[in-house]
Amino acid sequence: MADDTNLQILLRRRPQGTPTPDDFAIAETPVPQPAEGEVLVRARFLSLDPYMRGRMSDAKSYSKPVEVGAVMEGQTAGEVVASRAPGFAPGDTVLGGFGWQRFSCVQPARLFKVPAENPPLSASLGVLGMPGLTAWVGLEDIGQPKAGETLVVSAASGAVGQVVGQIGRIRGCRVVGIAGGAEKCAFVEDTLGFDACLDHRGDLRAQLDAACPNGIDVYWENVGGAVQAAVFPLMNDFGRLVMCGMIAEYNDTKPAPGPNLMAVVRKRLRIQGFIVSDSGWPRYGRFREEMTGWMQAGRMQWREDVVDGLRRAPEAFIGLLAGRNFGKLVVRVD
Amino acid sequence: MADDTNLQILLRRRPQGTPTPDDFAIAETPVPQPAEGEVLVRARFLSLDPYMRGRMSDAKSYSKPVEVGAVMEGQTAGEVVASRAPGFAPGDTVLGGFGWQRFSCVQPARLFKVPAENPPLSASLGVLGMPGLTAWVGLEDIGQPKAGETLVVSAASGAVGQVVGQIGRIRGCRVVGIAGGAEKCAFVEDTLGFDACLDHRGDLRAQLDAACPNGIDVYWENVGGAVQAAVFPLMNDFGRLVMCGMIAEYNDTKPAPGPNLMAVVRKRLRIQGFIVSDSGWPRYGRFREEMTGWMQAGRMQWREDVVDGLRRAPEAFIGLLAGRNFGKLVVRVD
Repeated sequence: MADDTNLQILLRRRPQGTPTPDDFAIAETPVPQPAEGEVLVRARFLSLDPYMRGRMSDAKSYSKPVEVGAVMEGQTAGEVVASRAPGFAPGDTVLGGFGWQRFSCVQPARLFKVPAENPPLSASLGVLGMPGLTAWVGLEDIGQPKAGETLVVSAASGAVGQVVGQIGRIRGCRVVGIAGGAEKCAFVEDTLGFDACLDHRGDLRAQLDAACPNGIDVYWENVGGAVQAAVFPLMNDFGRLVMCGMIAEYNDTKPAPGPNLMAVVRKRLRIQGFIVSDSGWPRYGRFREEMTGWMQAGRMQWREDVVDGLRRAPEAFIGLLAGRNFGKLVVRVD
Repeated sequence: MADDTNLQILLRRRPQGTPTPDDFAIAETPVPQPAEGEVLVRARFLSLDPYMRGRMSDAKSYSKPVEVGAVMEGQTAGEVVASRAPGFAPGDTVLGGFGWQRFSCVQPARLFKVPAENPPLSASLGVLGMPGLTAWVGLEDIGQPKAGETLVVSAASGAVGQVVGQIGRIRGCRVVGIAGGAEKCAFVEDTLGFDACLDHRGDLRAQLDAACPNGIDVYWENVGGAVQAAVFPLMNDFGRLVMCGMIAEYNDTKPAPGPNLMAVVRKRLRIQGFIVSDSGWPRYGRFREEMTGWMQAGRMQWREDVVDGLRRAPEAFIGLLAGRNFGKLVVRVD
């Protein structure tokens, strides 16, 4: 494809249950021209994240859905190719929400300059981006892990989970991950340094009993479903459940029942949801400083699952919802 | 019965499901003699509260169960009849946890002196006692009602609910109660001044839709079950659920499923349990001062349901679990 074509992935129709490739459409359009005050950005990396499933539905949620026929939304890292705005020049590398497309014209207020190479650009979509900030904010505001406590993290090898667990270790917690399959569990234990990682495909409740002899003080919820049901009874008095997502249920057309809440009274649990965009970005500078320090000190590992080519984004996203990615899922756009 | 006999209500056996009178036993024992450093107290009023159902079971909970054969636990207001402790003299009126019995010997550290008449002694077991403090602490720590928000209170005519709703009105909230039957609802609206009170025996969901046109920001949970299920879908973004109790489920032998928690993520809800004894009593002075001010200003009404005679306590307690009391349930011991 010529460089002067804008490739876009559109929402073709709203999925019923699990999305299929036919729910997306590919469009080739002319490269847009920046108006006065705008910057033309060429995307290098697109972040694929579970929250996008919610944007595809018109159910009431915290954010407006993507319109049918519109470009799918998403965070991207790219390069300025033309600028009619002060402070930005061709060659600058920037972050922003440019969506599932190669080129876009953006207001500078929606851009954030980042280094091109060190750390690698794609890290700003993961450990140093929205997923990393999500981990950091959710622990600061809700999880509040204390040294000696037990922190359990579901989807432990994923974009958010891997950061949550490593921050927990830095804070002095016993950290137990939950992931799908032996390979992911080995990575979580050996590379990320969690104290243990349990395969949810086995008898999770028995594994949790063994791995959490002192119960669970903080549970980071990325998954829901059977994982939530196995974890809930082990929560300790004054336990906190950080409700970040429930990916196992995103494709459900009818919500399943949840846990009986009497334990919330008896154990004085706190179950709290949050969305990083509510209050996270004003703290991005403080987060980036702390996270960069951990990265430079070798205390923060991360793994990316890089898919080549924007046309493969729908297939990769469908795989994400099924847990087929291994690490933070990003698309190398070209 | 002679004044020199101690009447006691014992836990005879652990109830299966709903307690029956046979789960209790009545004992007549000699009046105990205070040891050096102890005070002999004669109970005037015994408070009956839903939490006592938990104490009758040996399921793991926040507090040790009452032993089979032991005196039932409970808060009481009474009079010092003999003192071998400095600072206490016959005739003093005191609060403490003396249990379901007429006489007890108590350490001064477990006693709290209160006025005998103004406010009436029994108020120190209700609006000025543990239930009132529960309402005040739960709103301060979790509910955090703001002017203009909608606060829904279940068991609205009960000991805790009536105080919760009136504090909500003082804080400038729209306050909607839920109670059982037309008589209680009329009291909640007319005497307590809630904006509305809904009868849970009707179509609660439809009534809630009508009474809460702007959704629900704070829900005070005393009840659980069908009431919880009707309220949950109406919670607004950033809503708080103050999990104080779930009386409709206390006799369940098998917990029913709860709500699906995906809404906690989407709406950033906070569902939090608390027990007043965890952190409430150090704030009792501040609470009593504020509450007394409201009472003196005519801004705080309360209703008691007074049962005469300690022997009737089991029957009254069984009625409490079935919602047959109307207002704060207390037993006039003699």
